[in-house]
Amino acid sequence: MKIKNISILGSTGSIGSQTLDVIRKNPNLYRVEGLTVNKSISQLLDQINEFKPKSVAIFDDTAYEEFLTLVEEKVATSPYLAKINVYKGHEGLIKIAGSRTIDILVTAVVGMIGLLPTVEAIKNSTTIALANKETLVTAGQIVMDLAKKHQAKILPVDSEHSAIFQCLNGEESNKIDKILLTASGGPFRGRSRQDLINVSKLDALKHPNWSMGQKISIDSSTLMNKGLEVIEAKWLFDVEPEDIIVHVHPESIVHSMVQFQDSSVIAQLGCPDMRVPIQYALSYPSRLDSDFERLDLFKIASLNFQRPDLDVFPCLDLAYRALREGGTSATVLNAANEVLVEYFLNDKIGFYDIPKYIEMAMNEHDFIDQPSLKDIINIDAWTRSYIKNIIN
Amino acid sequence: MKIKNISILGSTGSIGSQTLDVIRKNPNLYRVEGLTVNKSISQLLDQINEFKPKSVAIFDDTAYEEFLTLVEEKVATSPYLAKINVYKGHEGLIKIAGSRTIDILVTAVVGMIGLLPTVEAIKNSTTIALANKETLVTAGQIVMDLAKKHQAKILPVDSEHSAIFQCLNGEESNKIDKILLTASGGPFRGRSRQDLINVSKLDALKHPNWSMGQKISIDSSTLMNKGLEVIEAKWLFDVEPEDIIVHVHPESIVHSMVQFQDSSVIAQLGCPDMRVPIQYALSYPSRLDSDFERLDLFKIASLNFQRPDLDVFPCLDLAYRALREGGTSATVLNAANEVLVEYFLNDKIGFYDIPKYIEMAMNEHDFIDQPSLKDIINIDAWTRSYIKNIIN
Repeated sequence: MKIKNISILGSTGSIGSQTLDVIRKNPNLYRVEGLTVNKSISQLLDQINEFKPKSVAIFDDTAYEEFLTLVEEKVATSPYLAKINVYKGHEGLIKIAGSRTIDILVTAVVGMIGLLPTVEAIKNSTTIALANKETLVTAGQIVMDLAKKHQAKILPVDSEHSAIFQCLNGEESNKIDKILLTASGGPFRGRSRQDLINVSKLDALKHPNWSMGQKISIDSSTLMNKGLEVIEAKWLFDVEPEDIIVHVHPESIVHSMVQFQDSSVIAQLGCPDMRVPIQYALSYPSRLDSDFERLDLFKIASLNFQRPDLDVFPCLDLAYRALREGGTSATVLNAANEVLVEYFLNDKIGFYDIPKYIEMAMNEHDFIDQPSLKDIINIDAWTRSYIKNIIN
Repeated sequence: MKIKNISILGSTGSIGSQTLDVIRKNPNLYRVEGLTVNKSISQLLDQINEFKPKSVAIFDDTAYEEFLTLVEEKVATSPYLAKINVYKGHEGLIKIAGSRTIDILVTAVVGMIGLLPTVEAIKNSTTIALANKETLVTAGQIVMDLAKKHQAKILPVDSEHSAIFQCLNGEESNKIDKILLTASGGPFRGRSRQDLINVSKLDALKHPNWSMGQKISIDSSTLMNKGLEVIEAKWLFDVEPEDIIVHVHPESIVHSMVQFQDSSVIAQLGCPDMRVPIQYALSYPSRLDSDFERLDLFKIASLNFQRPDLDVFPCLDLAYRALREGGTSATVLNAANEVLVEYFLNDKIGFYDIPKYIEMAMNEHDFIDQPSLKDIINIDAWTRSYIKNIIN
């Protein structure tokens, strides 16, 4: 395999650092070209020393200035620091993503800020290892059309979408009957609505199977995470909303399944370890030898499946509604959720205020059926200020 | 898809009649060229009337004579009967299998009689839809070498091997780490050796999930069926014995799995329905639309996995031994088992006499490391008479 140049948007987050772990173990296959962070400049410095990227970008203004000072101090002992390009802000991310010399862009940032850099890379026909949910959730139609036009591959990094992608291997000529999308059920699986009314962020952050960032952990507790994945699945695999069936599967061993037209179901299983789908996106269509933990079904003994309770988890229902409506509805769903999760993490609102205000925003917004990228950015901004006005 | 000519060895058995069911539902894709039966001539007559094959063969001498008489009586009302070729015995099966105009030969006979006809078809580069276990169990090396030489595809029809085959779709360049071969555990799953010492053939014939012929039902109760499948899997997928791990899975929903070198496991699932793997072998690499029952994991709720108990089911252990020894050991295992199952069905021996006498035959036979087809046929005959001498 020819050595591949990788850039990572969000290199110090959970997915970003696990991506670097995969690269660390396969130095003959991958080299790092660009890295971006929000504020974690000391971690970035460590990554620079280890992986020697050509360029980095720092999103936060203050952190950017601090980083420049830090570089001046350290350059005497780490002369490599003098050679790298340092970019700033959203523009900096776009600069990193838009480099024509990268083979794969790993989009591991959380939130809308991933959208434009991803679009930039797609225009260069760069392969996208997609871990940023918002890209397809808010602008699925535009992004997929663009990827098709520029023949850019979009390889999913989410464990569920990677599973579906793996199940479709060699099945190019066959029709998908249904996607069976699994969900751990999060920390509140099996609880009633009454139980959850006064639940705290600390309860919501305790995910049983996966260790993830705060935003995604809250999304997992509301099942919005699964809702966003349903929307992503529609765009990645071109399946109707009613043919994507969420299966609550507490063990998180079956990462998702595809049922084909002949009734046969193909599933992908494994221990919960994000490095598996990350590595697969980097090595596809090959698989690399790995020392990742092997599945022991004798030890696990039982795999369970249940229907999700949409009364207890209305965010999942709202995601299906957004998908059925199309147009700008998913953009509003996602932007409202992003702001509301932040309020919830700051103890400003309760657990069920999240779906309540998302629904209000979806009802109130000026729906556009075929939005442009600019429309999407405007609707996203409108939604954020609408929610802020309600809460404050 | 171009119309395919299909011949079926053993057309009135469980797999044979389900193959005809698949063909019945897809008259624009398949036509029947040849059919063979052991004795079931009235069923054969029905099949001739419906499917209009060019040729048929009847294995049993008496049945063959009766069939000729029957044809004479019926030819006035069914003039088509005058046009078909009618062959007799083992030679007849070879004649049907060796026709150069067939695209796929479905080998749905039980026992050693499937071997030479299959070899004949392989020499014509005919695709084999393999449902006859003995072909690979007794002569795996020879058959696979021959298939490679003549570029004949061997497509498994067993639900487990079809599952593995489906899991390997699009993974041509990737290494198999392990095959996780599932087993329902048969009617005696969870029982102790003490429980089973005096078990009757009626108990042994009650399979919980699959409706099958008598021989295979008994094999399923001793787990020899799984042992034979382990041996077949070795030949079909070129995997070492210790990398084929039998998983007892009472629900028979996961039909088998493949673990790849990156730790990822791909599985094939579905309701227990042999028409799914049969149809897949006929339509591969395409899948056909079907109204087969869809998997409902909400209803099934739980999939369970256990290690098989080799003390209670020593036949499985013997199969692994035969596989490790190679050469003629699996031929002896299979021939001894075939005769012993018949004795068990005739109430001549007890349940644990089956493994006991298989082991004796394996210990006693003149082992040949690289047997020819003739050696295999001789060892098979030796084993049968050895067992008969012991029992009578």
